[in-house]
Amino acid sequence: MQFTEAMFARHMRDINGSAIREIFKLLAKPGMISFAGGNPSMSALEPEVISELSGEVLAKYGATLLQYGATDGFGPFRESAAEFLRGDGVRCEAADILPVQGGSQAFDLLLKALVDPGDVVLCESPTFLGAIQAMREYNARLVDIPTDENGVIVEAAEALIREHRPKLMYVIPTFQNPTGITLALERRKALAALASKYGVVIAEDDPYRDLRYTGEALPPIQSFDEEGWVVYMSSFSKYISPGMRLGAAAVRNPLLLRKMVIGKQSVDVHSPLLNQAIVDAYLRKGLMADHLRRICGDYRVQLNAMLDAFSFFPAGAAHTVPQGGLFVWAELPEGVDAMRVFERAVEQNVAFVPGTHFYPDGGHANTLRLNFSMSDVPTIREGMARLGKVIAETADGRTV
Amino acid sequence: MQFTEAMFARHMRDINGSAIREIFKLLAKPGMISFAGGNPSMSALEPEVISELSGEVLAKYGATLLQYGATDGFGPFRESAAEFLRGDGVRCEAADILPVQGGSQAFDLLLKALVDPGDVVLCESPTFLGAIQAMREYNARLVDIPTDENGVIVEAAEALIREHRPKLMYVIPTFQNPTGITLALERRKALAALASKYGVVIAEDDPYRDLRYTGEALPPIQSFDEEGWVVYMSSFSKYISPGMRLGAAAVRNPLLLRKMVIGKQSVDVHSPLLNQAIVDAYLRKGLMADHLRRICGDYRVQLNAMLDAFSFFPAGAAHTVPQGGLFVWAELPEGVDAMRVFERAVEQNVAFVPGTHFYPDGGHANTLRLNFSMSDVPTIREGMARLGKVIAETADGRTV
Repeated sequence: MQFTEAMFARHMRDINGSAIREIFKLLAKPGMISFAGGNPSMSALEPEVISELSGEVLAKYGATLLQYGATDGFGPFRESAAEFLRGDGVRCEAADILPVQGGSQAFDLLLKALVDPGDVVLCESPTFLGAIQAMREYNARLVDIPTDENGVIVEAAEALIREHRPKLMYVIPTFQNPTGITLALERRKALAALASKYGVVIAEDDPYRDLRYTGEALPPIQSFDEEGWVVYMSSFSKYISPGMRLGAAAVRNPLLLRKMVIGKQSVDVHSPLLNQAIVDAYLRKGLMADHLRRICGDYRVQLNAMLDAFSFFPAGAAHTVPQGGLFVWAELPEGVDAMRVFERAVEQNVAFVPGTHFYPDGGHANTLRLNFSMSDVPTIREGMARLGKVIAETADGRTV
Repeated sequence: MQFTEAMFARHMRDINGSAIREIFKLLAKPGMISFAGGNPSMSALEPEVISELSGEVLAKYGATLLQYGATDGFGPFRESAAEFLRGDGVRCEAADILPVQGGSQAFDLLLKALVDPGDVVLCESPTFLGAIQAMREYNARLVDIPTDENGVIVEAAEALIREHRPKLMYVIPTFQNPTGITLALERRKALAALASKYGVVIAEDDPYRDLRYTGEALPPIQSFDEEGWVVYMSSFSKYISPGMRLGAAAVRNPLLLRKMVIGKQSVDVHSPLLNQAIVDAYLRKGLMADHLRRICGDYRVQLNAMLDAFSFFPAGAAHTVPQGGLFVWAELPEGVDAMRVFERAVEQNVAFVPGTHFYPDGGHANTLRLNFSMSDVPTIREGMARLGKVIAETADGRTV
């Protein structure tokens, strides 16, 4: 017999993988300047520190760290993650924490717990494309919430909730991926109130919050939630290491937490204990504050360099001015196709992600996402200059 | 609003978690002798070795080990895992290997790739209860394949394939969990032939294969598969460390591998690089052969002690005589309820897993699974003596 595409489950048949992961393959080309991806800078990673902590925790806990652990998490990590999240304004105790394989898994487990095929999930548009793919894999029906420069428009969200009665809303409130936009304070309060009023679970995906370079931190949506409708999803990927694959969800609704734990049991039993213990030690030693100060200092300079370098873009292009995070979002003059720009830019050894990939329904051909964390200042200037030239030439209809 | 059970997705509503994970909580009682669980012995775990390797790989690869990696795996680990599996008779190259969070995730990704709600999946009965839960979470319809003391009965499997035309069959061929039974050689060949003939993917779950204490190793089902219908799922949990959460699937069908990679992208992006690099170093240094020799020597003595101690059981009880693995399966005289025995045994500080949990449709109240890897010989004798007494008293209808 021949294996055919028709054997795949319906929910997987049309899903052909993350565009970003395909773009990554192009980045291996020597000399490529990459504004694609959402990686921390290499200098933000601390292999010597992690090595030392790894040795310490294996000496401290011995064989128990290599044995099976509980699905709901390694006790010390649940405590230190809860304390860390409380420092960010999240309401939680150790017992509310579920360790996960990065923020992605927290959202996957929420989808698994709540979503039947055909169920509506509300989300921003554009939004994180990993989340779009995850929602599609549960056969969810994605409905966009209108947004502006302050994030989700609350009245529009309420109208959509009344229309669709969704169980789940997915929001990235701080330095949103891909736009870099931050949800305004009053809107955070209002969304928490909507969640309680209508009984909608809000998945608050907040992995960039501590990468703030200017302005005042805002409390999480979850901090305004009295009843446990908001699930706060954090990750140590952008702060300590994405390769360690460790995040923490704060789930104050015990029924929901229990169902997410059950969902995790049959997928991976538990998150690796060594990884939980290393991050626990990192937090307990108080290494985070200084580390964030250092990397935010570097990223601030890189962000500003990129913002300045938009002067290389032709007139008619616009861009966001984020206060933190890893991304700037740009809109090219109407009619300029970022996919065409991408093809030409790659020939000139510059890469980014065309914005259309972040829209559940595609379109918005003139948008793009630019990352600044992986490039130093001269590289950012050089890359933006090349990109500006390619955009101008594409806009003029000339070939490069 | 109040969150209610009715908000959960249909496929999760009736799933209340692994019975074994609940039983684990009882094991914390001081003085408890546990024949429950499927943990390696604590002395089989090597925290000093893992610590040394962790330091080495972080020094060797530096920050790249903490950065994002590819979903399809860390190159060196894919190579060394392929070589390790080839040593077990598996046909594979590095490009066929998908690193996973233990064997459980490989099966979850297969289910995700192939199973629509209501699809039949063929499986042994009894079978691994984590797999039962995983299949239920995809709304699969579980159909038992009749088995005997040599494993799956091929003629029965063929009849069920013709009847149900399933896309997927789940088999644990070596030292099966929970029975300890090993699938006979001719049946392995025949199952591979059935897979090709009818176009059924076989999930060959083989995490115990190298824990052989007597007899000759048999080639995997996958080794007889010419067309890539058999997915071989291995894990380093029982050999090196379950807490590390690392397994390897060998998937020779590139379409299927690609779909599993896509399924993994949105769940956890990739398996942690540090864990992949540590196991890679373990394999490259050739530590596995000596390690397996040592732990198999210990486990052999423990298994024999347990087999001898069935002399404490009353007449009419029967048990399997496995050649390896972690479990012995027992049948009590008809009418003796292992759940009742369990309650009384826990009072006497002995635990095991009642066999009914391993049957997709329950029943088989007189069966139980006994693990010997977590207890030394005197403890095994003491525990089996207590258990024999409780069984005899339960059989007699007397209260303890």
